[in-house]
Amino acid sequence: MARNTQVAADPNAPPITQILARFVATHPSRGWSDAVDHEAHRTFMNWIGCAVGAARHEAAESALAAVRMLEPAAQATVLGRGDRIDMASAALINGITSHTFDYDDTHLKTIIHPAGPVASAVLALGEHTGASGRQLIDALVLGIDVSCRIGNVMYPDHYDRGWHITGSTGMLGAAAGCARLLGLDAQRTAMALGIAASQPVGMREQFGTMTKPFHPGAAARAGLMAALLAKNGFTASPKALEAPRGMIQTVSAKCDWREATDELGQRFEISFNSYKPFACGIVIHPSIDACVQLREQGVRPEQVARIELKVHSLVLELTGKKTPADGLQAKFSVYHGCAAGLTFGRAAEDEFSDAVVNRPDLVALRAKVVATVDDAIGEASADVTAVLNDGRRVHVFVEHAIGSLQKPMTDAQLEGKFHGLADPVLGAAPTARLIEACWKVGTAPDLKAITALAVPS
Amino acid sequence: MARNTQVAADPNAPPITQILARFVATHPSRGWSDAVDHEAHRTFMNWIGCAVGAARHEAAESALAAVRMLEPAAQATVLGRGDRIDMASAALINGITSHTFDYDDTHLKTIIHPAGPVASAVLALGEHTGASGRQLIDALVLGIDVSCRIGNVMYPDHYDRGWHITGSTGMLGAAAGCARLLGLDAQRTAMALGIAASQPVGMREQFGTMTKPFHPGAAARAGLMAALLAKNGFTASPKALEAPRGMIQTVSAKCDWREATDELGQRFEISFNSYKPFACGIVIHPSIDACVQLREQGVRPEQVARIELKVHSLVLELTGKKTPADGLQAKFSVYHGCAAGLTFGRAAEDEFSDAVVNRPDLVALRAKVVATVDDAIGEASADVTAVLNDGRRVHVFVEHAIGSLQKPMTDAQLEGKFHGLADPVLGAAPTARLIEACWKVGTAPDLKAITALAVPS
Repeated sequence: MARNTQVAADPNAPPITQILARFVATHPSRGWSDAVDHEAHRTFMNWIGCAVGAARHEAAESALAAVRMLEPAAQATVLGRGDRIDMASAALINGITSHTFDYDDTHLKTIIHPAGPVASAVLALGEHTGASGRQLIDALVLGIDVSCRIGNVMYPDHYDRGWHITGSTGMLGAAAGCARLLGLDAQRTAMALGIAASQPVGMREQFGTMTKPFHPGAAARAGLMAALLAKNGFTASPKALEAPRGMIQTVSAKCDWREATDELGQRFEISFNSYKPFACGIVIHPSIDACVQLREQGVRPEQVARIELKVHSLVLELTGKKTPADGLQAKFSVYHGCAAGLTFGRAAEDEFSDAVVNRPDLVALRAKVVATVDDAIGEASADVTAVLNDGRRVHVFVEHAIGSLQKPMTDAQLEGKFHGLADPVLGAAPTARLIEACWKVGTAPDLKAITALAVPS
Repeated sequence: MARNTQVAADPNAPPITQILARFVATHPSRGWSDAVDHEAHRTFMNWIGCAVGAARHEAAESALAAVRMLEPAAQATVLGRGDRIDMASAALINGITSHTFDYDDTHLKTIIHPAGPVASAVLALGEHTGASGRQLIDALVLGIDVSCRIGNVMYPDHYDRGWHITGSTGMLGAAAGCARLLGLDAQRTAMALGIAASQPVGMREQFGTMTKPFHPGAAARAGLMAALLAKNGFTASPKALEAPRGMIQTVSAKCDWREATDELGQRFEISFNSYKPFACGIVIHPSIDACVQLREQGVRPEQVARIELKVHSLVLELTGKKTPADGLQAKFSVYHGCAAGLTFGRAAEDEFSDAVVNRPDLVALRAKVVATVDDAIGEASADVTAVLNDGRRVHVFVEHAIGSLQKPMTDAQLEGKFHGLADPVLGAAPTARLIEACWKVGTAPDLKAITALAVPS
């Protein structure tokens, strides 16, 4: 029998479960601007690249071995591999691989990585049910809108108390997207959201382990199953999100309800999605960007006597590792980031491999980086001067790094990132064809071209 | 990049993930008293009866229809039905059915219903892997110990803030039980607990919907998959339970760490499990018990002029519905409970059917119940006097109802409950054979007899 005790409950929350369900079920197809639709294509393409790139990572091998113990039916494609497994398991595995390199997308207002849970669910479902590309993009836009809006409601308190917000909102986006793909009405869509609401996934303590990328995968799986359950008449509370003992009030002390519904159908959260140009923590990005620019101005590592780096104190607090021993440590080293940027003109997953991190020229170049704190410089900025052997000084100031909302990656840069991830798995020419198919997915009659091109021939 | 903000974190928690993992992996088979082992058999049998009884409920039909969309392999049995599905889905469905009637077991210290998540996971896994009955019972005892101990650590704060504690601790018990069944070592068992720790299931807002029994089912599924992942090398934080941003501190302000490890291996939480004799909220049980006793003393409904019921105020506050319109409302009517107890000598699921609730004789008898509040009577007690047409008064005082820890159901009463649930599904004679097999499961070479007997022939 239920106790009556309550912990700081708000009984007057608006009916956001119903409102969001009606929105997802009834908003017109492509009912948004060209810019939003293009951003959805960028989000989709970037997500596929990340998933393909990590397809042979040990986290994928391990998770797939577990799934194989269920003897899954061949319903949907594991990106970057030949395997076909049931659609719920495909959502899980593709969700894992897309986040394995920590190199995917970021909704900066909430630091949600929105594509992992939503795209993984809707592609696996849509592939099996024969959805069109337009249906997929619609589901992606609407699903991401739901998960990021719920993130806005709860951030930052929810994140601060320990939740990995990508997985603990992502099951709602996945459920919304899959409900849309299945053509559920508003009432059943509300049930899908309700079933998903009981399954937030992910604790921040897992960062640094395979369970971190498991979070978007498990959220994708939970959301997809929630939609299948709702389609078949399974019931949940129609107030599962907002009720005093519903999900949001249970997992967050901050409940800014307006964020769920303000400008609904006019402002789309996918517009605020960003893509990582570098495969490491975001506070290092301005410094890497500056060093890439130095290289573009002709500066070469062998000419450099010293690199003077001025950054906000937070940068050194979080990523001040001067002599990283391996790739994982290098992801927390602004020194390595600078050395990689100047040496390679990029800092993708390969530039954080153990082998590269321990190369003598990189070790030597890192030692030439002299970092000083200057809190007059913003957290998202960096001031870098290369002092050359001949005494010349070359200076670059980066106010907003490439990949930020102020300076988004161009389509060409996204394609370059995609090639870096997928070429080693698929080959350069097939990767180019896959990129082409991603840009055109919104007009594709079905998803077969995408899934066929996303596996090695 | 992670923020540094912390919400009331305790960095000095003991390493309970490791301690519990070592315990689960290394505690000797049947390393407990005969009484504990017998309680495990009672828990197992009671769980099977509940699952078989609800096998054709619409929640089961709906969930099974969703699972069938995955085209699952025929690995494990859906109790009470002919279906065979993959073991993870079988854990889900059997977990749902076992809790659908709200008639299963209760660990009274935490109001966890412990068998649903754990037994559903270990039977599905053990059936597919060919485990012995002894391995099953060992896994059940150890799994329930883990989930209930974590419940003890967090209760009541965790429950008060909105978590359905059965599903939000059950995935740990299921992971522990499955890790034990798979023979994982302490390190991999810790990984299984860690993977499960990211997946607490269930909000109290779902009470009254199908998503309530979904919680133990989803917890069973998550725990089983966590063990399969760990077996295949998937990693999680070795401090996933206790770390400042681990599961427990994220979902509970109360963290009484000693509960996790005090008397570990000596005190077994399954000893404190109880079984519902009546298919309704527990505060009605003393009143029903009293009316059943009146009937046993020869009182018949047609003889009764008035039933004088004295109870604690909480009983009427929670279950004071005088004229229930249907079965669900009747579960919150102490008046109907009294009428059913006196009429049938029992109050199982059938006695809360819409048809019975609306029978004229029941409606008339309910109207003769006069309830008064007396807070001198404990919440777990009831004082009932039948005033007969001839003026005689027959009085019964129940201090502790049948099914409480002070007055547990006897084995014969559990068998009676089982027959009430399973006879309509399996037939009386097959049910008797299934009961026999449950009592002997601890010495069975495998689980085939149980799963074969638990489906209609």
